[in-house]
Amino acid sequence: MLIERQSVGRVEPRHYAFGSAETPMVLDSGRALGPVELVYETYGVPNEARTNAILICHALSGDAHAAGIHDPHDKRVGWWDTMIGPGKAFDTDRYWVICANVIGGCKGSTGPNSTNPATGKPFGSDFPLITIGDMVTAQKHLVDHLGIERLFCVVGGSMGGFQALEWSLRYPDRVHAVICLAAGAKLSTQGIAFNAVGRHAITRDPDWQEGHYYGTPGPVRGLASARMVAHITYLSEIVLDHKFGRRLQSADRLSYDIHNEFAVESYLSHQGTRFTERFDANSYIYITKAMDYFDIARTYGPLKDAFAAVQARYLVVSYTSDWLFPTAQSKEIVRALIANDRDVSFVDIDSPHGHDAFLIETEGLTRITSAFLDGSQRSQPLE
Amino acid sequence: MLIERQSVGRVEPRHYAFGSAETPMVLDSGRALGPVELVYETYGVPNEARTNAILICHALSGDAHAAGIHDPHDKRVGWWDTMIGPGKAFDTDRYWVICANVIGGCKGSTGPNSTNPATGKPFGSDFPLITIGDMVTAQKHLVDHLGIERLFCVVGGSMGGFQALEWSLRYPDRVHAVICLAAGAKLSTQGIAFNAVGRHAITRDPDWQEGHYYGTPGPVRGLASARMVAHITYLSEIVLDHKFGRRLQSADRLSYDIHNEFAVESYLSHQGTRFTERFDANSYIYITKAMDYFDIARTYGPLKDAFAAVQARYLVVSYTSDWLFPTAQSKEIVRALIANDRDVSFVDIDSPHGHDAFLIETEGLTRITSAFLDGSQRSQPLE
Repeated sequence: MLIERQSVGRVEPRHYAFGSAETPMVLDSGRALGPVELVYETYGVPNEARTNAILICHALSGDAHAAGIHDPHDKRVGWWDTMIGPGKAFDTDRYWVICANVIGGCKGSTGPNSTNPATGKPFGSDFPLITIGDMVTAQKHLVDHLGIERLFCVVGGSMGGFQALEWSLRYPDRVHAVICLAAGAKLSTQGIAFNAVGRHAITRDPDWQEGHYYGTPGPVRGLASARMVAHITYLSEIVLDHKFGRRLQSADRLSYDIHNEFAVESYLSHQGTRFTERFDANSYIYITKAMDYFDIARTYGPLKDAFAAVQARYLVVSYTSDWLFPTAQSKEIVRALIANDRDVSFVDIDSPHGHDAFLIETEGLTRITSAFLDGSQRSQPLE
Repeated sequence: MLIERQSVGRVEPRHYAFGSAETPMVLDSGRALGPVELVYETYGVPNEARTNAILICHALSGDAHAAGIHDPHDKRVGWWDTMIGPGKAFDTDRYWVICANVIGGCKGSTGPNSTNPATGKPFGSDFPLITIGDMVTAQKHLVDHLGIERLFCVVGGSMGGFQALEWSLRYPDRVHAVICLAAGAKLSTQGIAFNAVGRHAITRDPDWQEGHYYGTPGPVRGLASARMVAHITYLSEIVLDHKFGRRLQSADRLSYDIHNEFAVESYLSHQGTRFTERFDANSYIYITKAMDYFDIARTYGPLKDAFAAVQARYLVVSYTSDWLFPTAQSKEIVRALIANDRDVSFVDIDSPHGHDAFLIETEGLTRITSAFLDGSQRSQPLE
């Protein structure tokens, strides 16, 4: 089946703010945050009853710019442009696709680099700790604002998958379908461990300055280290070996230099540095903490009980070479849904691309997603 | 079979120096190093012909103190005390067991924290890059000095396994048997990647001071980060999950604090800090570089050809949950040996302990090793 792939073209980021210092959003921690601002983008148009909305939830380092371009001169399209557009998996001829930057982020939504209304300065590490549930609650304010009674689908990979699951648990009557990619019902111990190393590198960088570094270059060395270790966990050994192997960076012979010798070292170092140009170190801390906290069983009880209250139908997708969120973690969700006689489809996609596969393996995912969304229209027609 | 496990008791570290500024050791890089000092320990006694010597090669953070105690008040025994002693796998009633600290190390042998004879100050980052081959060549000087014509066995796990393999390739007529645990014929791309992150954390720590930090506290934050990430790779997900899971560090409820929340975070952080008290950051850089360089095929040609010249018999051991040196990497060695009709035994030990299993799973290893060493006496009796 050939799919004609077109772009959503030029899109305009939008802003929505809710709450205030007097009427703040109460976070899972008990702390208050307000006003809260969200940056979001939409692709496609709502139908009259606004029943065709698909909410895209981004991963750790993502943002609201999921498809299209902002400026005619942009060389790069949004991070999931392969999946969103006319005739694509999230078909903008049929669906109204929405993506918002998470709170705690640094891409326009309220986060540690936002101004603290109490001081007139950036929050820094005075920003309250947030959870995946808090991210979802903020999105729910936006969904209300957009006049959407029930999301046709919530979809996300990795931390986006956490949000998609959380939506169906926290607001069961507001979600018709969930697509959860490369995620799990909790962050694993190993996942927490890798996040902890990253945060350690940032917070021990003297330039972190206890989190109040705005106006200075900030902990770019620590953030680069954090990104490097995380980047390894996103790639499979197969991909690393195929892409770099033991190839030397710039010579036929070993240079016996204390610095980068192998191509994979230079690549990681480059990725680390580039990341510091586009991401805020405090946001990295806050968002990884939110991932650490994610644990459906802790919040909603044992998985079998937790999923008893959900109403959505689910598509759960794992990837064979993903070792950060191995297939077994997806199966755990699937088993809990089956135990509750819920409608769930599960696919373990054979891919060498590791955790990043959810961003890369779009051919297969397009077929699976399209079929799942078509099926989801049977129980909730788009009219 | 019950094995009576006794200790080798109190041992005295010994020193051996060879070479000089005028007659240095020429390293694989082409650079010169001399004089070279090695710290080593011996357990058991040589037989008359000195044919009963077993050389133990230590891993990245190991040292010459493999068994027994230095002082009657020592609370800790040597790092492989479970394997070395009267009646143990490396039976000191029968074998003369030797362990030397590698060059590049920081436990007494010549390394970056040694005095540079050219300046009278510590080498720091002026120390030349070394290889596994250089470590082995230095050990060969010691073996010559000790009057050993042919080592009965060379054994090591992880980087120690690299050295054991290298011994049999570089000095084929000097090794009767090789035991290679949790290693491979090269360091994988992922292995290089993790090492690169560790070195990045150290060298970007301002306290590294381009490697000339002796007399100051040094890059303890960077070294702690490096150890934390490496430590994760030594443990399996199973062990992490079983040992820590998502247990909180110090409370029944989430504290929503920016610092350590989960037990695994505190554990890693503690491991990182402790490591800085016993290890030199420059040695960490030099030894991980040596591991990166290890690639039998690069040095000796395609594995099948490389192992054509060896004379030793081999025991190759992998561990089912070791993801730093997965079983497939051991099998690669085994296949090359079989292709050359060499005497090789291979065991994949079922263990949840990940890469660290070679230090932990000593029951099974004792049985396998004892049988292999007994078998090795058939072709070379100890008289």
